[in-house]
Amino acid sequence: MVQSPAFDQARRLYLDDLAVGQRFTSGTHAIDEAQIKAFARQFDPQPFHVDGAAAADSLFGRLVASGWHTAAITMRLLTESVPIDNGVIGAGGDIAWPRPTLPGDILTVTSVLEEITPSRSRPDRGIVGMRSETRNQRDEIVQVLNSRLVVLRRATLP
Amino acid sequence: MVQSPAFDQARRLYLDDLAVGQRFTSGTHAIDEAQIKAFARQFDPQPFHVDGAAAADSLFGRLVASGWHTAAITMRLLTESVPIDNGVIGAGGDIAWPRPTLPGDILTVTSVLEEITPSRSRPDRGIVGMRSETRNQRDEIVQVLNSRLVVLRRATLP
Repeated sequence: MVQSPAFDQARRLYLDDLAVGQRFTSGTHAIDEAQIKAFARQFDPQPFHVDGAAAADSLFGRLVASGWHTAAITMRLLTESVPIDNGVIGAGGDIAWPRPTLPGDILTVTSVLEEITPSRSRPDRGIVGMRSETRNQRDEIVQVLNSRLVVLRRATLP
Repeated sequence: MVQSPAFDQARRLYLDDLAVGQRFTSGTHAIDEAQIKAFARQFDPQPFHVDGAAAADSLFGRLVASGWHTAAITMRLLTESVPIDNGVIGAGGDIAWPRPTLPGDILTVTSVLEEITPSRSRPDRGIVGMRSETRNQRDEIVQVLNSRLVVLRRATLP
């Protein structure tokens, strides 16, 4: 279940439009036990993601979402909140899960641009460093993603 | 479609069983256009992941899998190839996608343990640094994941 903020499709951003410190806030995604188990059965079928009883005996002590599920939901929220013209294209980054996502959590992502580096070899683009924090409804951080995005410049006339 | 290597459920590893340099090789996962679009519709619905025609006009020039889909498939292959007793539990790591995963690719993950650090504050566990390279059938690397895993020690008698 995704609720998106007003998102002006006509207002797509290029590298030229970005500034360090610029912030983007996503809509929300409510996650439940069924979603957690469905994702995990396909991609991370460990007991603490698919079986509540077995999860009680695990390091987590209860059913929790796969970190990769939190990452995938974060990506969904980023595609709806970061209006880069060529899309949200990550070359890579670092990711941390300070605490797990739980059934019933409502997730939101806040992103801030931390670095903008025009490419020397490819003058039509640059790399943007973005920090995205995914929080639950208790304002606890469940994921921090520092990503390197490929962003095109506005096309210049020949 | 997942093909797994022989995996001895009885041979589960604890921190005490691990050594730097230890390697694990996964089975394979064959990815197709339907899987790519299904994942992307849910988590990364950008044109270059869901629409072949629109993808031709994108930075990628063709339909490609979401990097988070490659990450999720990698996790599936890791759960089947890295037999840690308490499960493959990542605290975080860094990830890079040097090239995209394409429809028709057959992915395999090779992992090597690079660092083993017993916890000072919690003597029952340690952190293991693992490098996992995900390759396609042309032996090209589509993802490099350096992860920090939480691994329990074998329980000692009281």
